[in-house]
Amino acid sequence: MKDVQKEKDYRNIPIDKVGIKNLRYPVTVQDKENKYQQTVANINMYVDLPHHIKGTHMSRFVEMLHIFRQELSYEAFSRILNNMKTQLNARSSHMELSFPYFVKKRAPVTGSSGLMDYSCKITGQSDRNGKIDIVSHVEVPVSSLCPCSKEISECGAHNQRGIVKLGVRFKKFIWIEDLIKICEEAGSCEVFSVLKRADEKEVTERAYNNPKFVEDIARDVALKLYDDKNILWFEVSVENFESIHNHSAYAYISSSGIDESRQEI
Amino acid sequence: MKDVQKEKDYRNIPIDKVGIKNLRYPVTVQDKENKYQQTVANINMYVDLPHHIKGTHMSRFVEMLHIFRQELSYEAFSRILNNMKTQLNARSSHMELSFPYFVKKRAPVTGSSGLMDYSCKITGQSDRNGKIDIVSHVEVPVSSLCPCSKEISECGAHNQRGIVKLGVRFKKFIWIEDLIKICEEAGSCEVFSVLKRADEKEVTERAYNNPKFVEDIARDVALKLYDDKNILWFEVSVENFESIHNHSAYAYISSSGIDESRQEI
Amino acid sequence: MKDVQKEKDYRNIPIDKVGIKNLRYPVTVQDKENKYQQTVANINMYVDLPHHIKGTHMSRFVEMLHIFRQELSYEAFSRILNNMKTQLNARSSHMELSFPYFVKKRAPVTGSSGLMDYSCKITGQSDRNGKIDIVSHVEVPVSSLCPCSKEISECGAHNQRGIVKLGVRFKKFIWIEDLIKICEEAGSCEVFSVLKRADEKEVTERAYNNPKFVEDIARDVALKLYDDKNILWFEVSVENFESIHNHSAYAYISSSGIDESRQEI
Amino acid sequence: MKDVQKEKDYRNIPIDKVGIKNLRYPVTVQDKENKYQQTVANINMYVDLPHHIKGTHMSRFVEMLHIFRQELSYEAFSRILNNMKTQLNARSSHMELSFPYFVKKRAPVTGSSGLMDYSCKITGQSDRNGKIDIVSHVEVPVSSLCPCSKEISECGAHNQRGIVKLGVRFKKFIWIEDLIKICEEAGSCEVFSVLKRADEKEVTERAYNNPKFVEDIARDVALKLYDDKNILWFEVSVENFESIHNHSAYAYISSSGIDESRQEI
Repeated sequence: MKDVQKEKDYRNIPIDKVGIKNLRYPVTVQDKENKYQQTVANINMYVDLPHHIKGTHMSRFVEMLHIFRQELSYEAFSRILNNMKTQLNARSSHMELSFPYFVKKRAPVTGSSGLMDYSCKITGQSDRNGKIDIVSHVEVPVSSLCPCSKEISECGAHNQRGIVKLGVRFKKFIWIEDLIKICEEAGSCEVFSVLKRADEKEVTERAYNNPKFVEDIARDVALKLYDDKNILWFEVSVENFESIHNHSAYAYISSSGIDESRQEI
Repeated sequence: MKDVQKEKDYRNIPIDKVGIKNLRYPVTVQDKENKYQQTVANINMYVDLPHHIKGTHMSRFVEMLHIFRQELSYEAFSRILNNMKTQLNARSSHMELSFPYFVKKRAPVTGSSGLMDYSCKITGQSDRNGKIDIVSHVEVPVSSLCPCSKEISECGAHNQRGIVKLGVRFKKFIWIEDLIKICEEAGSCEVFSVLKRADEKEVTERAYNNPKFVEDIARDVALKLYDDKNILWFEVSVENFESIHNHSAYAYISSSGIDESRQEI
Repeated sequence: MKDVQKEKDYRNIPIDKVGIKNLRYPVTVQDKENKYQQTVANINMYVDLPHHIKGTHMSRFVEMLHIFRQELSYEAFSRILNNMKTQLNARSSHMELSFPYFVKKRAPVTGSSGLMDYSCKITGQSDRNGKIDIVSHVEVPVSSLCPCSKEISECGAHNQRGIVKLGVRFKKFIWIEDLIKICEEAGSCEVFSVLKRADEKEVTERAYNNPKFVEDIARDVALKLYDDKNILWFEVSVENFESIHNHSAYAYISSSGIDESRQEI
Repeated sequence: MKDVQKEKDYRNIPIDKVGIKNLRYPVTVQDKENKYQQTVANINMYVDLPHHIKGTHMSRFVEMLHIFRQELSYEAFSRILNNMKTQLNARSSHMELSFPYFVKKRAPVTGSSGLMDYSCKITGQSDRNGKIDIVSHVEVPVSSLCPCSKEISECGAHNQRGIVKLGVRFKKFIWIEDLIKICEEAGSCEVFSVLKRADEKEVTERAYNNPKFVEDIARDVALKLYDDKNILWFEVSVENFESIHNHSAYAYISSSGIDESRQEI
């Protein structure tokens, strides 16, 4: 049977990334407390394609994932990136793994426990020199209370749910749980799946006494990461689903340009 | 050229609805203040198909919409439903038109003006007896402030954006603007696209002085609609994007079962 | 601490459904081959609220789910519905559980195996008389090849991915796997996560030799269900993501009105 | 009334982007055939914030947009970017405008006309030196027919809808319509909103006689853009919603790395 993909291509255009997108698959990821956690991932897997080859072999991506899915640790993530290069005769490989991740949290006063869900993503690539670059991402819901609204109003202050999205490159392995903690501590208050009335009083007052703009939350996350020698690079965004508008307030800081801009001012 | 759709079908199974789904098209709808408003709709159009016919003619739906799109008033909506029955030899027809709708709103203190967006939907069907049934739907963002949190906390109260979804059947034509107003008045405070600081103080205090559970918002919408002789049927749901959780609080009331349940208790 | 929710309400309006919406939680569901399958669900849980009570107790829903999540069999589903009524002093309860479900499938020629994902939903309610009504839903991707396009064209025929959505009420327990099979057999060809070249040849030819309109797929699912004495009610919809349009073709059949319409013609 | 936003910040962390996100607003954009087209946009507007200022003034973004929305030409886009810097005392500004855009298309044989929808995005920024960088993006649905499936099968070939996403930087103004044309010509066949039977025959045969992998479509778009002296930079991705799988095939080419990679091989 003819292998059309293997044929020569004469357009002289290499392809940066080719592969499969939006594959849904059950995977097992590392869990700080329980060692392993089973979840469901949305997965993209790509390799490069040299200018003279017509197409890649799509079925091999799923076959590789099927083998590796049982333990998607960072080590396995690196192995699968290398495997993709070998199996598909490629010089670079990319993988994006997005999944909900659950952490047990206790309500602050009653201690009632429930699971909180966080959207996480691990992206990795292996380049032509075999260098592997992995970025860990977490999306952490928080409560934010507006400092301006509190200051100018006789009573109350508008507050809302916000999402802190954090991506980091690191030297030594870093737990998802630790990235979540950095984000939760930067909000006016963290959010919970179970809160009894005593807890609700606590989180209401805690947020009121800790007002934060999106700018504040982004800066407080950035502060912690600048102080952490294990972090090589980060970007953090905060989106507040404003309770007084039908649009969001948004702030974004990347470590990339920071030194330059600090000097300029 | 053979018309496969027209062929006989021997499975003896009539089809309730067949047609096109998720067609995006520019349409002109009625506007209370400006007479017309141009917007972009997502459209579904279906007819029934008798048990002995193999298929419908999909291209005719888009052709009809193309003609009628310039003025999608309620009258035009009825005409297109009748047209679908004629053009497609059907006994019943259905149409669903979802679109963002914009209303100019002034900030409560400074009067700064901006446009607020509301997701609207009009669904209609014409049955075998030619009876036309039209339902108007609006989705109205509001601010809601938790009565429990206010009561038990020394300061502040958690609040958040919520969405009130209202669908109604009516005797005489009813403006989208009037349905929006009913929903906005039921929240702790309405939301705006532009708020200066004096306005932000006003909406913060207004919400704090007007705490509402999802249950309260749903009931206050229902109260107004029960009192309105023009309303034949309604359903209202309220979803609060809780600022202290990563899930929503939700309440739903339909006028259908109300009388029965009132008597029982 | 005051319990605002428990207070009297004087608006005299009962609420049909009140509770939590869009809670994401890990759950364990029944699996025909492996007994259990861990997955991640999106969950809504509601109870009714009598006209004279101000609010429900939202935290109890999550607490109940946290206990029951480990084995969400149909039996457990019924128990949780009853539990909701007891714990929340309600007369009716509702639960909606949506989750991806994975089934191992072998490619038709080479036997290469991979996991296929299906979006599933179980909805249940317990009414005032304690009667429990459970509906099982599956969303099954299939390949569909257009009979008209095949008939009129000199070569080829447009085909595309479609989604068959099936919901059923049943007498005896029915496996998700069995509902999936009914839907997959109704398409021009089923779809797979892994296909080698020999498999691709097979599925291409199988689809070409088995052309189906959305109407045909819906009818073939309906035929099977009418013949199945275990099925008390069903509704099936088919949506084809047309490869020649940017909108979908759609067909819908519900068993509700079928007898009446059969007689009429 | 105190202006909390204007206060000093002592964390010494500048913010790359701060502003509003996911604002829905009606806008008027340029149209090649009709001069103007009214549509509905989703809008993000950001400025940078120096390290010593606490917050930005969110309401000013919406006020500016409200003024400029009536004619969002490229010239106006540049003016609004400059305006954002002035009004918000910023050194850089960013704006992202996403909207559906409609083009009249005639069916290839019968000439039946309908409107085709394309998702478009214009992103722009003005940097510290006042240099403005605008990127135009279009998302173009096409039909793609698999060359491998055609080659190895006795009859037929699997085909499906795909989306070509193209972003370009250019010297002289370029019409959305011209970007769309480049993408549509690269597919196995373009897609239409209205097709009668004679047209369906034509597009079926055209696709069958013009098989393309995702790789081919991406390369054919790239070829055209490399030959176009007006294009300064581009990136193109193609995602095929495979009719034989429940995941997508994907290819991506960016002009950035092309020269380097060409030399290496």
